Amino acid sequence: MPSAVLLLSGGLDSTTLLAHALAEGFDVHAMTFRYGQRHATEVSAARRVATAYGVRDHVIVDIDLRTSGGSALTSDLAVPKDRDVADDSSEIPVTYVPARNTIFLSFALAWSEVLSATDIFIGVNALDYSGYPDCRPEYIAAFEQMANLATRGGVDGTNRVHIRAPFIALTKAEIIRRGLALGVDYGITQSCYDPPADGIACGHCDACQLRLKGFHDAGASDPAQYL
Amino acid sequence: MPSAVLLLSGGLDSTTLLAHALAEGFDVHAMTFRYGQRHATEVSAARRVATAYGVRDHVIVDIDLRTSGGSALTSDLAVPKDRDVADDSSEIPVTYVPARNTIFLSFALAWSEVLSATDIFIGVNALDYSGYPDCRPEYIAAFEQMANLATRGGVDGTNRVHIRAPFIALTKAEIIRRGLALGVDYGITQSCYDPPADGIACGHCDACQLRLKGFHDAGASDPAQYL
Repeated sequence: MPSAVLLLSGGLDSTTLLAHALAEGFDVHAMTFRYGQRHATEVSAARRVATAYGVRDHVIVDIDLRTSGGSALTSDLAVPKDRDVADDSSEIPVTYVPARNTIFLSFALAWSEVLSATDIFIGVNALDYSGYPDCRPEYIAAFEQMANLATRGGVDGTNRVHIRAPFIALTKAEIIRRGLALGVDYGITQSCYDPPADGIACGHCDACQLRLKGFHDAGASDPAQYL
Repeated sequence: MPSAVLLLSGGLDSTTLLAHALAEGFDVHAMTFRYGQRHATEVSAARRVATAYGVRDHVIVDIDLRTSGGSALTSDLAVPKDRDVADDSSEIPVTYVPARNTIFLSFALAWSEVLSATDIFIGVNALDYSGYPDCRPEYIAAFEQMANLATRGGVDGTNRVHIRAPFIALTKAEIIRRGLALGVDYGITQSCYDPPADGIACGHCDACQLRLKGFHDAGASDPAQYL
């Protein structure tokens, strides 16, 4: 079985991604970040998901993105509620964390090199997302190109890395349908940016709104608990 | 004054780089990593250097690259001594830390975005180095391209990031000559991978050998203390 490193936040997208990668036959090494996020309960969700799927191993990496700041997810800035998430003309929202996916993928790259894993899975999504620059296909392609110049395996050509973002062109509803077909239990996942308690979602932040709309469009009901 | 983020290890190259960036008129924000390196005394050296130059601010970022492992610098693997560092046909040595520069530059990218800094300085060197893939010009160019797709400023074109590696094509002797011309006190820097004590260098690891050869070729004497 080929090995893969998978970025697991414990949310809807990355949990579906895990089910997808396992179904594709990968031996999955999951990586989760405790980065100073206000919704650190997502780390508990990632643990529940990793345990439920019995992944090969699961590391929690501690980094502190409050050092650089600049985001509502890592500071006292208010998380926007009931924003019009369908309005794609709007600015990049304050929940954007500067260079977060680049930092996450860099750690995944380091681990993949040590494991001799050739695939790194990331659950980014360029359609029903929040307008983050580091969720776009051209960004993922540029990271892959850089990654293969950064590492031993890329240089000698023995171990080229592929950044897999299989949901990048799917709607949230399509991701949910795929997950349900793979038997994902969305009740153990957490998407909320501003959860009032572990396992409870606010229902009003961008992440909750996108998730609720996704379930609605998929004609399914969301087993998550909302306030 | 334009702002810049500068990766400062407290070694010869990054200290010279700091003097160079200040001489170019940048307002420097220095960033140092405590990453589980066995030569963590380099963090003390970075503090000495940042203080000596009175940089705008200096952050020490804690990350643990022992999680991914794979290097003599972050594990119990022996640091090679008295290796032929001029032999560029040899394998990438065990002191290579997987994806280290990618991780460092990613954090610098996050900070630069928050600071609206357009320049990131890194003291990599492709000539008198140890054969690391992430010290080559093509790697730096690929990182810059990726960085400008990853961030707000890159996307809207308001704040393109430049990765500055002004020493990439210099020999160690040339870097030292430039530093001496800028008045750098190399006595406060630390290059050794395996220092027997804070402020003492082993004299036999790759970093010490390259440094000693550099001073020799520059016709200068190294004020560092060797065992």
